[in-house]
Order: sequence, then C-alpha cells, then structure tokens
Amino acid sequence: MSTYELYYWPTIPGRGEPVRLTFAMAEVAYRDMAREAEDGYALLLSFNAGEHPEGHPFAPPYLVIEEDGERTLHWQSAHLCDLVAARHGLYAEADRSRAASLGLTLADLMDEAHDTHHPLATGLYYEDQKDAAQVRAKHFREERIPKFLGFFESQLDDTGHLVGGRPSPVDAVLWHVREGLRHAFPKAMASFAGRWPKLDAMTIADHPPLRAYLDSEGRIPFNEDGIFRRYPELDGAVE
Amino acid sequence: MSTYELYYWPTIPGRGEPVRLTFAMAEVAYRDMAREAEDGYALLLSFNAGEHPEGHPFAPPYLVIEEDGERTLHWQSAHLCDLVAARHGLYAEADRSRAASLGLTLADLMDEAHDTHHPLATGLYYEDQKDAAQVRAKHFREERIPKFLGFFESQLDDTGHLVGGRPSPVDAVLWHVREGLRHAFPKAMASFAGRWPKLDAMTIADHPPLRAYLDSEGRIPFNEDGIFRRYPELDGAVE
Repeated sequence: MSTYELYYWPTIPGRGEPVRLTFAMAEVAYRDMAREAEDGYALLLSFNAGEHPEGHPFAPPYLVIEEDGERTLHWQSAHLCDLVAARHGLYAEADRSRAASLGLTLADLMDEAHDTHHPLATGLYYEDQKDAAQVRAKHFREERIPKFLGFFESQLDDTGHLVGGRPSPVDAVLWHVREGLRHAFPKAMASFAGRWPKLDAMTIADHPPLRAYLDSEGRIPFNEDGIFRRYPELDGAVE
Repeated sequence: MSTYELYYWPTIPGRGEPVRLTFAMAEVAYRDMAREAEDGYALLLSFNAGEHPEGHPFAPPYLVIEEDGERTLHWQSAHLCDLVAARHGLYAEADRSRAASLGLTLADLMDEAHDTHHPLATGLYYEDQKDAAQVRAKHFREERIPKFLGFFESQLDDTGHLVGGRPSPVDAVLWHVREGLRHAFPKAMASFAGRWPKLDAMTIADHPPLRAYLDSEGRIPFNEDGIFRRYPELDGAVE
C-alpha cells in the first residue's frame, strides 16, 4: 500500500496539473498538500528551501511516496506522470518509453507557452518584458504552435489516442494543453480551426474518471498566474 | 541482443551529449548515425520530417533500438539517458526515479543556458535578439546559475556522487554542464570559485570508460553552434 502526497502551488494548474490528470485517470487517491494546508505557499517555499526531511527538490511539483514506512521524494512534472502511470498500469510496459517521449515533448510545449509571457526572466514582472514577450509570442503563434500541434496530430491514431490504442495520461495532458492554448491564444487557435482534425476532435468524454475530475472542484481553471495566460497583446490571428 | 542507433546533429555536443556520456559509462556500443553518414544534416532533417519507417519523432536526439528484429523509436535527451542507464544497470532500480528527477533538472538547466543566446525565438539569428539576450544572460548568470548549481551542490554526497553513492550518468551530465558553463560564461563561473566545493571537485577521473570517451574523437568540443556558446557580451562577473 502506497500513499501519495503531491506538493504544488495551490492556485494554478501549472506543472502540477499533468500529475493531477494522471492520478484522476489512474483512479488513485492522493493528498494535495498545499491545497489542504492553511498556507500552501509557505509550505511550498519551505519545501523549496530544503526544510523537509524528505530532501531538497529543485522545483515543484513534488511527489512524496510513502511505502512500507519509507518516504521517498520525486520531482519533475513529466517524470511524475510517468511514475504514477507505470506504477498503476496505465500503459503496457512496451508503450512506456513512447509515452515518456511524448510526455516530455508536451512539457517542452508548456515551457514554451510559459516563456511567451516571461521571455527574459521568470524573476522579472511581465510588465518589464512586454516588448520581448510580443516578439516571442509572435514566433510561438506562427512557428512553434504549428510545429508542436502538427506533430501531435501526426501521432494521434484513428481512435484519437497517442499511446497503445487506448486513453492514457498523455492524451489527457495533450487535451489540457490544447485547452490552455485556446485560453491563452484564442485568436491564434481560431485561425488553426480545421488544420488538425484529430486534435480538434479530442475529447475526454470517453474516460469517465477523468471527466469526473474535470467537473470537480479539484480542477483549477486556467488563470492569469499560471503557464497559459490570456494577454490580448500576445495573441493574434495566424495566416 | 539489442543494437542502438543514435541520431543527432553531427557537429555539436548539444542534447545528444548526455546520451553519448551514458553509453560511454555503460560501455555499450552504438552507432552515431549522422556522424557516420555522408550528409548527417540531411539525414536528421529527413528524420525530423517523418520520412523514416521508425516513425515521426519531435526533435533530436533520437534513439532507434533494434531487438528481436523489431525497431522502436525513442526521443527526448534525458529520457534516452534514463532508458539506456536502466537497460544496462547503471542504477539500482530504487535509485532510478531520483536519477530521472535530477536528469530532467539538468535538461532544464541546459535549456536555460541555450535560451540566454536565443531568448526570443530559436528561429531568429542571435544578432536579431542580442539586446534581449543580454538581459536574459544577466539574469541567468546572477539568479539561475546560483539556484541550479547551489541545488546540485546540495545533492552531491561526500564522495562527489549524485545517485546511489557511485558514479552514474547523472554525475557525468552534471560534470559536462559545469564544463559547458565554464566555456560559455568564464567570468561568471570564475566569480563563483569556492562557492560550491563539491561541484568544483567533481571529476570524471574515477570512471575509466568515461575518461576514455572524453579523450577520444567521439567527444565533440564545445563550439559556437551548440547550447553553450561563448559570446563575451553575455558573460560578466557576478558579485
């Protein structure tokens, strides 16, 4: 019997959301520690500072697994998805490497979406890098979104799945990222309508536990503090 | 019996180097396909375009594993290291997740080092983003290098290893990244001398196969087309 504690910023989907989606698909219980805490930010900051007995991780999300009285610490969002998915049989073992390759590619896309509003430094305010953000966002809309989404279109099978012919967390994260891009870049994404039909048709309706999670209070809406932020000046139609 | 084919740009260490270091530590033979090819760039571009029977990966490095007549395709640098290390017993199974968490954190550091010279778009020339590069590089030198290297200092054990008390590919990649940072930011790195004694003391001399690889022609020197580029205007002492 394992217990799972997830530690992530309590008010954004961010890099914690792929892990939450994976737990939802696995139908595995976990504690969302910073959301349960009175001061979730303080909890995260103390963990970041290496003040927890489990060790000193680099950046959230963190996962502490307790098993046979032993507590181990894990981090890096895409890796946590792989770990939870593998432990709970969400992929055939033969599909695991493909799932990891795809999951890390989605993590890269999320990083690039983040960097559209923070191209110069995560430690600087958006207002202090707005001009650079406009240049970066233009390239992201015109070159990177088509490169990434065209790639994922090529990877979806005829039933709309990425791995092993059945729903997996990689599908859920791709679905989430598509929603995030629609939130942040509604004009750009509208320009692409019809270009990637399999991606357009993706749904999570075929996975009831995932649907239940998305309809619950566990799902944090996209907002202007996370990865996918709607800044009108960073959006625009794409030819 | 497995055979391995690595596909990566033939003239830079880049994101292929962590995989080469892992093969070296494992003492496992592999073919470095683009370096064997007459036109390695054309080979990579055709693979990028999805023109190979193994499938359509996102971005190099790619690894094709042939086993029992079946060829499978894998990508994402840190994942390839994990895959090769796990297949060849470079970690105890209990240490694998920690190694993956650390390896992905090193991949993030490499991405951020790359973005110092390409903060706005990988598709734009450096000359067209030089001003933004100077802002990003300053933050990288002053905030990100200390955050990352201070973190890795905290993770090294008393024998100078990151995982399981013995040399592993994660050590080799950290060593490589430290060398890359010294190449790209000699002034900044000189300012940090003595701040992270375990990191300063890291060596690969305790692993003969790795040393042999590094002394061979297989090792491509850092140069001005890869991740770690020495642009004097992006370097500077740090207080």
